[in-house]
Amino acid sequence: MFNSLKVIFEKDPAAANIFEVLMYQGLWAMFFHRIAHFLYVIKIPILPRLISQISRLLTLIEIHPGASIGRRFFIDHGCGIVIGETTVIGDDVTIYQGVTLGGTGKEKGKRHPTVGNNVILGANAIILGNITIGVNARIGAGSVVTKPVPDNATVIGNPAQILTK
Amino acid sequence: MFNSLKVIFEKDPAAANIFEVLMYQGLWAMFFHRIAHFLYVIKIPILPRLISQISRLLTLIEIHPGASIGRRFFIDHGCGIVIGETTVIGDDVTIYQGVTLGGTGKEKGKRHPTVGNNVILGANAIILGNITIGVNARIGAGSVVTKPVPDNATVIGNPAQILTK
Amino acid sequence: MFNSLKVIFEKDPAAANIFEVLMYQGLWAMFFHRIAHFLYVIKIPILPRLISQISRLLTLIEIHPGASIGRRFFIDHGCGIVIGETTVIGDDVTIYQGVTLGGTGKEKGKRHPTVGNNVILGANAIILGNITIGVNARIGAGSVVTKPVPDNATVIGNPAQILTK
Repeated sequence: MFNSLKVIFEKDPAAANIFEVLMYQGLWAMFFHRIAHFLYVIKIPILPRLISQISRLLTLIEIHPGASIGRRFFIDHGCGIVIGETTVIGDDVTIYQGVTLGGTGKEKGKRHPTVGNNVILGANAIILGNITIGVNARIGAGSVVTKPVPDNATVIGNPAQILTK
Repeated sequence: MFNSLKVIFEKDPAAANIFEVLMYQGLWAMFFHRIAHFLYVIKIPILPRLISQISRLLTLIEIHPGASIGRRFFIDHGCGIVIGETTVIGDDVTIYQGVTLGGTGKEKGKRHPTVGNNVILGANAIILGNITIGVNARIGAGSVVTKPVPDNATVIGNPAQILTK
Repeated sequence: MFNSLKVIFEKDPAAANIFEVLMYQGLWAMFFHRIAHFLYVIKIPILPRLISQISRLLTLIEIHPGASIGRRFFIDHGCGIVIGETTVIGDDVTIYQGVTLGGTGKEKGKRHPTVGNNVILGANAIILGNITIGVNARIGAGSVVTKPVPDNATVIGNPAQILTK
């Protein structure tokens, strides 16, 4: 939690003081998710999903309890975010409102993305399928990504195009 | 309701058991909508819209009571969905979070889309105006569609392009 | 408030009567925002942001208390809207669900858009950075705009292209 607070001050110029930051719904979503994911990993039934649904109602952010999320994950605004069950997210990732890390509906088992360290996912970006987003990649707002993205790449557009490698 | 439960197990690989499925907000949104739509059709004033607004608050899904929706409608995740008053949706349609079935602001009367049987609408897809989406069509995530889509077509992109007929 | 009610009847063909219009979440979001913004301007700490967060929970619309918004602002549906701290919005602007008026993360100080009078922002449109959207401009649904838009222009697509000047 302490790391999460620190990262908000570093990354959000609108963060004025500790009281305001404690209102950040992204912080609460991760608080609920850490509990739900722990219960999911030790195979407690039903309860993890119930926690996740309560969190969705309060924070407008939907993270499946199965999703594995690294340290210093920063969710800004967050309304409409959907993170699927088999998603794997590295450390120091930043994610904005409306982002989907989802499936294509054609895969079984690991069917959601793997996101490398230090990636930024812009508002409303949609990443679909069991693909890898390489470390330090920047995914532009509104991009629709269905193919792997190399390390350090910037992608924009729908369908997404790589800008620089 | 029974049909709705069955379709969730068929279409969602993350649906683990009946308790989890009963938490699905899409199921609740349709429960509220069936009541609101019935009251709307028999011309009860105010109450249908009140039910629809309560449903929006609880499920984050906004369906106007006037919208006509077929059987086995499956809403996945659902946050941010907006379905307009004169929308007509066939049977076996699947719809993801962030989808808009809306108006262009230029039409009167029937001003929202008509969606054929067995259509899939990807996350954040936007369909605007009194246009028809043909049976079995697939609308890619993030597509912006303002022209009719033929039966069996797949469209992607913004502005949307037809991939295959 | 009276102006806000009148504009809903003028702009929304689904607005049937005064009771329904009082349920409009956009109206409530602006009610909360007018109070939060007043407290923000006179430099009351913490409380403005608390009001804004409560409003987000109830209306699904997130407006930073610092945002300056003109008269007869019309929010339709509204789920997922994010309006940043240094945004300036003129009079008679219409905005749909899922719109972001946000920052690029690269600017300090005034880092959110300035939106001219009489602009329409379509569903899920994303406007990023300290850029100006000219008077009477129309921003198509799902557009991603990172450059200034001239007066009277229509832009669509991702990345956004100007259709007409």
